[in-house]
Order: sequence, then C-alpha cells, then structure tokens
Amino acid sequence: MSHKPYKDFEPDWYTEVAPKDSYRYYMKWGDPAFNKPPKEGLYKLVKKIFGLTDEDFKNRRYLGLEKIDFDIPCTLSAEQIKTFKDIVGEENVAEDKISRASVCYGKTMLDILRLRHNIIENAPDIVIYPSTTEEVVKIVDFCKKEKINIYVYGGGSSVTRGPEAVKRGSVTLDLRKNFNKVISFNEKNQTITVQPGMSGPALEKLLNDAPKTLGAKRRYTCGHFPQSFEYSSVGGWAVTRGAGQNSTYYGKIEDIVISQEYVTPAGGIIKTDPVPRKACGPSIDQIMMGSEGAFGVLTEVTLKVFRFHPEDRVRFCYIFKSWEEGQEAMREVMQGEFGFPSAFRLSDEEETSFMLHLYSVEDNIVGKMLNTFGYAPGKRCLMLGFNDGDPALQKLIKKRLAKICKKHGAMALPGAVTKAWEGGRFNDPYMRDNMQDFGIIIDTLECAVDWDRMQDVYKSVRAYCKSRPKTICTTHISHCYPQGANLYFIFVIYTDDIQEFSDYHSGILDAIQKSGACMSHHHGIGKLFAPWLEGQLGSDEMNILRALKKHFDPDNIMNPGGTIGLDLEADQIVPIDVKWEKGKFRGI
Amino acid sequence: MSHKPYKDFEPDWYTEVAPKDSYRYYMKWGDPAFNKPPKEGLYKLVKKIFGLTDEDFKNRRYLGLEKIDFDIPCTLSAEQIKTFKDIVGEENVAEDKISRASVCYGKTMLDILRLRHNIIENAPDIVIYPSTTEEVVKIVDFCKKEKINIYVYGGGSSVTRGPEAVKRGSVTLDLRKNFNKVISFNEKNQTITVQPGMSGPALEKLLNDAPKTLGAKRRYTCGHFPQSFEYSSVGGWAVTRGAGQNSTYYGKIEDIVISQEYVTPAGGIIKTDPVPRKACGPSIDQIMMGSEGAFGVLTEVTLKVFRFHPEDRVRFCYIFKSWEEGQEAMREVMQGEFGFPSAFRLSDEEETSFMLHLYSVEDNIVGKMLNTFGYAPGKRCLMLGFNDGDPALQKLIKKRLAKICKKHGAMALPGAVTKAWEGGRFNDPYMRDNMQDFGIIIDTLECAVDWDRMQDVYKSVRAYCKSRPKTICTTHISHCYPQGANLYFIFVIYTDDIQEFSDYHSGILDAIQKSGACMSHHHGIGKLFAPWLEGQLGSDEMNILRALKKHFDPDNIMNPGGTIGLDLEADQIVPIDVKWEKGKFRGI
Repeated sequence: MSHKPYKDFEPDWYTEVAPKDSYRYYMKWGDPAFNKPPKEGLYKLVKKIFGLTDEDFKNRRYLGLEKIDFDIPCTLSAEQIKTFKDIVGEENVAEDKISRASVCYGKTMLDILRLRHNIIENAPDIVIYPSTTEEVVKIVDFCKKEKINIYVYGGGSSVTRGPEAVKRGSVTLDLRKNFNKVISFNEKNQTITVQPGMSGPALEKLLNDAPKTLGAKRRYTCGHFPQSFEYSSVGGWAVTRGAGQNSTYYGKIEDIVISQEYVTPAGGIIKTDPVPRKACGPSIDQIMMGSEGAFGVLTEVTLKVFRFHPEDRVRFCYIFKSWEEGQEAMREVMQGEFGFPSAFRLSDEEETSFMLHLYSVEDNIVGKMLNTFGYAPGKRCLMLGFNDGDPALQKLIKKRLAKICKKHGAMALPGAVTKAWEGGRFNDPYMRDNMQDFGIIIDTLECAVDWDRMQDVYKSVRAYCKSRPKTICTTHISHCYPQGANLYFIFVIYTDDIQEFSDYHSGILDAIQKSGACMSHHHGIGKLFAPWLEGQLGSDEMNILRALKKHFDPDNIMNPGGTIGLDLEADQIVPIDVKWEKGKFRGI
Repeated sequence: MSHKPYKDFEPDWYTEVAPKDSYRYYMKWGDPAFNKPPKEGLYKLVKKIFGLTDEDFKNRRYLGLEKIDFDIPCTLSAEQIKTFKDIVGEENVAEDKISRASVCYGKTMLDILRLRHNIIENAPDIVIYPSTTEEVVKIVDFCKKEKINIYVYGGGSSVTRGPEAVKRGSVTLDLRKNFNKVISFNEKNQTITVQPGMSGPALEKLLNDAPKTLGAKRRYTCGHFPQSFEYSSVGGWAVTRGAGQNSTYYGKIEDIVISQEYVTPAGGIIKTDPVPRKACGPSIDQIMMGSEGAFGVLTEVTLKVFRFHPEDRVRFCYIFKSWEEGQEAMREVMQGEFGFPSAFRLSDEEETSFMLHLYSVEDNIVGKMLNTFGYAPGKRCLMLGFNDGDPALQKLIKKRLAKICKKHGAMALPGAVTKAWEGGRFNDPYMRDNMQDFGIIIDTLECAVDWDRMQDVYKSVRAYCKSRPKTICTTHISHCYPQGANLYFIFVIYTDDIQEFSDYHSGILDAIQKSGACMSHHHGIGKLFAPWLEGQLGSDEMNILRALKKHFDPDNIMNPGGTIGLDLEADQIVPIDVKWEKGKFRGI
C-alpha cells in the first residue's frame, strides 16, 4: 500500500515551501515543507466522482502565493501600545502585517478559502507575546480600562473561527512564543501543570522522555491526540472541550484536566482546586472549559498523565457486512464493562470504500475476496482501533471485542490496516491543501448523539450532504461511550466558490441542528457554529451562558464577535467581506 | 463474628418503635422498627475509651419520645394556600405540625441533637407534594410572584442542613410522596430517566428486576450506593454531587448523570441534552449539579445504568503494616491502568483497631496471629473492597492488586471480612441512634485531596480531632482516583451538650480548610459547611456562584439561608435558638 507513481499522469502537486510573506504560508497546514498528495487510488476515485480528467489537474489555482497585504489600520494609540510594551517588553509586541496576519485566522475551511482568495478581513491591531500570568493580569486590567478587545491564539488549529479578531481595536495574545512552559510536574499525583501555549507534541515529548526531562521514574503520555495534534495547543484543547483520537480510553480533555487558572476581566485570578472530584458547589472547571476565550484567558492547566508503553499496544481491525451491524457491535463493546479500547472507529459504507480506495484495496484481489465472503462493496464497513493500558487489560478487551464482532458477522482483518491508519492519521490534513489547489475542498463537521438516535441523525444529516450532486460524504464514529458516540462527517466537494461552500456548510449545520444531535462533540462552537447554538441548547440554557459572560466580562472585551453565541446582536456582527453577499453566509 | 449477648451486662437499648407524633420518630435513622446496638467488642472499647461503666448504660437520655410541638406560625395567607391547593390538589398540601416537622431537618447530627432536645427551630409554613414538572413550574412561578421561599425535600438524608427551611414564609416541596416515578427507560442507551423523589432502593429494585419491571433484556444496577442509600433520593444524589460506596468503579453521581431538567425562578425549563459528552460551551449539567436547590428545582434526571450480576463479584481484603504503605498500594492500584476496583477502602490504624474490635478480632487469636506476622495493633491497617464489571476484568484487577499489596508488605485476609463489612455497611447509621441514647455521639466529616498532600491533610485534621481528650477518631479512604482520593473522618465523643459538639465540629471544619483539602468530597456544602466555602474556593470563584444565583434566582427564594454560601449576609442569618449561645455555632 505504498505510494506508487501514477502510471499515466502525475499531477503537478505544489510541494514547494511558500514564501514567508505569502498567504499560503499561513494558509497551509503544519510543516511548511511537508506535503501529502493523494495516492493513486484516491486520485482516481476523485476524478471519477467529480467527472474530472487529468487535464483538470493541470491548472492549479488560488494558491495564495501572493504577498500578504491588507488594509486594517491599527486603531490603538501609541500610548496604549507603549503600555503593552512596558508590560511584556518591546520585543514581545508586534505591529507588522505579517505578525498580525499570522494570527488572523485558524484552520477553518473558510479561513483557508479566504487566504487563497487573498482576503484578510480581520486582524488584531497588534500581537502581544506574554510570558507569565502576572503579565496577562496587567494586560487584561489595562484592556478592561481602555475597552480594548482581547483575542487569544493558542495553536491556531481552530475549525470554528475561534481566534479570529473580528472586532477592531483589539490585541491578540499569541501564546506560542513565550507562554509555553512547564509550571510543575507531580509524579505522585501523575499530573503536569503547563502554560496553555505549549504545543501537543512538545508536551508529549516531554512526558515520553520524562525520566530525562522531568526526572521521573517512568515514561508518560498525555493521552490526548486530536487530528490537529501537531499544531494544537494544550490551552486550545481545554477551552474548546477538545477530544483526542484515543478519547474512548483516556477521556475527552474535560476528563483529563484536573485544574485550571484563568485571568478574567472580573478581576482576580480564578484558580481551581487540584483534586479529581469534590462536592463544593457547581464545578468551576466545567464552567471555564467550553468558554472558548469569552470569559477570560487560560493561564495554567493541570492535566492527568498516563503511563507510556507503546510497545504493548494491541491493534484490531474488522470488516462488517453493514453499518448497522458495526454500530451494534460498537455499542455492545462500550456497554460490556471489560474496559474501553483507546482508538475505536467505525466507518460507514462510503468511508470504507473511500479508505479502501485510499489504500488501493477496493478493486484488487483483497477487495474481491471480501466480496466473496459477503462483505460487499458499498455495504461493507471497516472498524479499527487499538488498546492502551495494562497489557493484560488490552488482551482482555481484544478478546471480548473479537467475540462481539464475530457475533455481528464481522471478519478480522490484519492489524496492518490499523497501523496504516495510525501512520497517516496526523498528516491527513496536509492532503487537503494539495487537493484544494485543484478546487477539491475537503472539510468536516461532527456532532454528539446517543445510540438510540444515531441512525436517525446519520440518515438525515447524510441525506442533506448527499443532496448536493457530485459530493463525497463519508462518516465515522470515533469517540465512544456506553451511552452514545460522535458522528463525524467528511465531505468532499469540487468548487472554488466561497459562497457556494458556505451555503452548503450552513446547510449541514442546519441539518445537524434539526436532527436533534448536539452541534459539536469536540470541535467546539467558536464564531462559526455560534448562530446555531441557541437553537440547540435552548434560550433558557443560553441565558445561563450569557449570565456568566456578564459576570466575567461585562464590557465584552474577551473574544467578542459571536463566540459561543454570546454577542450575536446585529450591530455587533462584523460585516462580511464584499467577495460574497453580505449577511448571506450564516457565520459572522 | 455474630452478635453474642454481653456476658455480664446487657444495656437496655431502646428498640421500640417510637410514636409517630414523637421527635424520635423523625430523628431516628431509617426503618422505625430496626435497631443496631453495638456488638460486645465495640461496647467494651467505647466503655474503655470514655471511662464508662455498665452503670453509665443504665440511664438513657434525650430519647426524643416527647410529643412534637413547636411554635412557628404559618405566615402564608389562606389565599396563597388555596392557590397551592389549586395547583396540586387539596390532598397534596399539608398544614399540620407533624407533616411540617417531618421535613424540618435532614440527618445532620445537629438535627438529631435538636430533635433529642425537642428543638424545632425551623419548619416550612406548609408542605406541598407535587406530582409533575408542570405543577412545579406553576409553584415556582407563583412563589416568585409572591416572594415565598421554596425548600425541597428529597430523601431527607442530608448531613449538611441541606433541606432545612431556615427562612419564614416558605413552602417545602416533599418529593417522596408523588414525585418519584419512572419517566422512561432506554435499554439501547443504557439510561433511565426518573423523577428526583425516587428513593435509591426503589430505583435499584426496578433496575435489578428490569426484565419484569421495565421489559428489559437484562438486569441492571444504578451503581450508586451512598451509606445513606436506604433513605436517599436520586434527586439528592444529583444536586449535592453525592458519591456511592462503589464510586471508584461507577463514578460519582456527576459521572453517572447524563442529563437533567430543572425549573428555576428565571423562568422556563432547563433541559440538558442526553449525550455523554459534547463541546457546546460550558457544561450546564455541571453548573446545576452542586447547586443544592439554590438555583432551582430538579424535576427529572437521566442516569446511566450498568449490568447487574452480583454473583460474579470478586472480593479482596488485605492487612498492611502501616497506613503509609496501604496508601502507596492504593495509589499504585489506581494508577496501574488495569481497571478500578468498585468498593476500595483503606482504614487507618485507629479505624482498623475499631473495626477489629467491632468484630471482636482485635484481641483474639486472629489478632494475636497478625501481631506475630508483624501486623502490630495500633500500626496495622485494613484494606478491603470488591470488584464489579466483566468477571475476567474483576479477576485481572484482583491479580494486579494482590501483587501490588504484597509488594507493599500486605497479607491477604479472607474475603469474609469484606462480606461482613458489606453486610453492615448500609445499616451502620442505625447504631448511632442506639449509642446516642447514652450520650455517645458518632459523626463524620470528609474531604477531597490529591495523593501528594494526603498525609499532611490527614495528620493536621486528625491532630485537631485528637486534641479533644477521650475522642475516638477513625479515618478511611473510600473513593479513589489516579490523582487523589477522599479522606473520611469518623469521630466519636461522649457529650450531651449541643454547643460543645458544635464547637468541636466547627473546629474540624476549620482544620480541614486550613489543611488545604476541599471541604467536601461527596457530602455537599448545604447550610452547615457554607461559612467555610468561600475560604476554600476563593472569593473570585465564589463570585461566579453568586452570579449564577443572581441569574437563576434574583429574589433569593430557592433554598435561601446560606446554601452553598450564597446568602450569608448577617441580616439574612436565622437566629440560633436560645438553647445555645446565639451566633456562637458557626453554622447558620
């Protein structure tokens, strides 16, 4: 299943390092030098579905190679900027366009499309790189006094327009440069306390090498691996209620966070108790997680750590005759009380076909053999995953899982399939840039639902997705609980039109909301999904969040402009750029 | 270890059913006809420690057999009472003293002492027995309009003065009579939705017999068994953030609750989404749990259910040479990632000695044999527990646990010890009534702490407890996590003096707060611990709870009078009864 050169035609994938002052440099996912063109099977599939020819892959477009330029004046006074420089040091305040552009967007498809079209419609007036909680206290106090808006940039991997500075007269605190240190490590408690700008890989490396880096007795893992892992930040995990791909075993970030520290415009420092559970009123940790920067700035987070012994990892892979049978097996595993797998995924028929194409299996001898055994193309569904924890526990889970899968008509496939998925799981986002150079947009939306309503939600959301002709829509379940799971929709469409994309994207959010599922299992709400949140939570529930906002941030300076739906009044909505019809796009 | 008649002297334990109109009827724990005099070993120990003779056990006192009477006039108008009767029906409003007395207190030691001394200092004006959410909506709306205070009575097992109607012009909603029905059961999701007045045993029976009662395929358990189980309510579990004795496996109630419905004075009905996890802003469920009736009335709760197969239960019991070694073993088990025991307890030296006396083992051949092997009296510590879940998982946990315990110098004892503990665990509260008839007060306080600070917290709190001469103070750890656990202090003192007891109790709370532990792992805060909460959470954190209170209940009609520290202004504090010095007791 290695990457073979395409036989007849090799598209001219753009694989150069884009200039540092180009839109592309900030648009592209991850390592500027790494690219991931699709393998031949997938390339063929895409051509077939969209009715494209090799000719269509000759014309790369909207590469965003132009030099960054935008006309968003800095509205802060020289005196205000001087105050910030006095707080953090001259070298930690940036006023130039490149620094401002580097934090203007996250990795939302809308961000990528805008950068490809050279649209920077929002940027902070300046960028600040704080180092300590004390500096953040001073910044927040000053901003409150001067009514300056504060945006926070963690890893920049948001897919919900989370960090976008949509209001003028604003600063962005970019935590990547200085706010990324270890505060403390406690091996007895198995916890680590870090600043929120620490990146996922930096934390994981530190923990994996804990005997050297932290003087620990053992090696550890953070257990939290979102697909955005490479460029995600610990702070972003916490404030958005993120989930890693191994969350079925390790839990979502709200299960991993033990305590937090926040600086808010209400004054003082919120610091929660570092105990796993207590009964001392409502959970302040669970109030702050999910606030997505709208209540205050996360300045410290204490996380559980887990033992690291990847050499013991036990993998599994099954093929089912139908999506329904796969789901039944998944539910039975989660309700069986013999421990949970770590990664645990089930792909629907279309995703299974897509994956088998990806690895050129769909039509070859293996694919045909599967068909012979009753696992028909277009019906068959792939389940894969691996376990973590004590080796004997892993074996027990594998044994029980095997029995349940077989009961539901599944056949075991080699663990190599799982290994192949593991190998690609963090660099799949690279592929979307290469594909998009030819007008192929790959984007995702996800939701949370209980087992009982899962098929209904799946059918209605998928029906909407597929109502658009020539659209790939693949779905998987990847974060499981005894009472339900997520549904993750990946859609691939062929267009260069931002408005067309946005309308379709909004239509899917409409469909999710109407289906009765929760708008997000782990992407968060940000500014992009915000218009839908009240419809899902209910107005009485939304008013609770508004009351909290009023308490923490009465002047609305923290991540203003719609974040988690808190300030969606018409007069606060930043006008949509002229490139598409004003107000038509349902985001802000 | 069965109950033998005492050889020389059989105290005249009061074991009759107290008259229904007596204080004792409402003071006594649980089944009016059930009593639990101490076994001989414990009786002897208590005599020895308090320097008592058999003579002292001839004079029962403060039995509370007097006929209930109190002078708290109903301040509601006839018209107001008529409105309530129009809402719930004439038969569901009670104005008589017995009904009012039956909900005046919970099972806080202060409540028991007051009833023994014939003190009913607080009672609601009337008692209402609603049946439906719609009725509660009407009641809350009307109370808001008329500024009538609302208290809610679930199971009445509070040890924090939770349901006490400390303000005049109030109604108590007693949920036991009508608000105790199953709303729905969903076997696919493994959830059950019930009204909050349902008692623990009623829920458990329903689930254990699910094939008959709910038409289910399997038998289930709720997994939540607080010591107060027999007389606890599902609603009480949720609003106080309770924990069952098997919480190490099943989780605390906040881990078991999937969704809730609340009626609040803010209007509308708060109804959360029934999904296990999501990323749609702060967790509304985690805001409402811990609100202890101060934000609104819980009207529905959806809980996880688990598979029920008690025949598979695997028990274990170990004796350690020291408390420290026992704790190290416990921590290692919790961090070992091979699954968690269900019940998992470690008793300190004094509790171990107490328990061995309880079962007359301390000084007999078994006790001496233990000594021979190096498990010395006054040093040795007992660990016991059992597992739940898949039988193979249970065996794995037992195996790993055995290895860890042995590494820490422990010796296995027969599982019969665990069985003996299981047999008594829900009826131990009965014993405290029988003992107290002779002036022996048994009460408890508990806190949450991480592993790293556990010994410091233990030592400083215990030092305070033992600073009082002739005091038994036993401690155990009974709810464990990889990052920490609870510490549960049981203290036994000899006094009839309410103020003396209260001062001592306050001193322990002071000691807990000063130690840096969290005030409560699962008892909640109520009105009794409220004065300490701000000191523990911090004022900035407390202000978050106040902001929520202001949103939900701007007129402060929901469980007013100090609940979770929300309204502790001096002018709102209900004067303490003349029987002890006004204001000296640190509760309200």
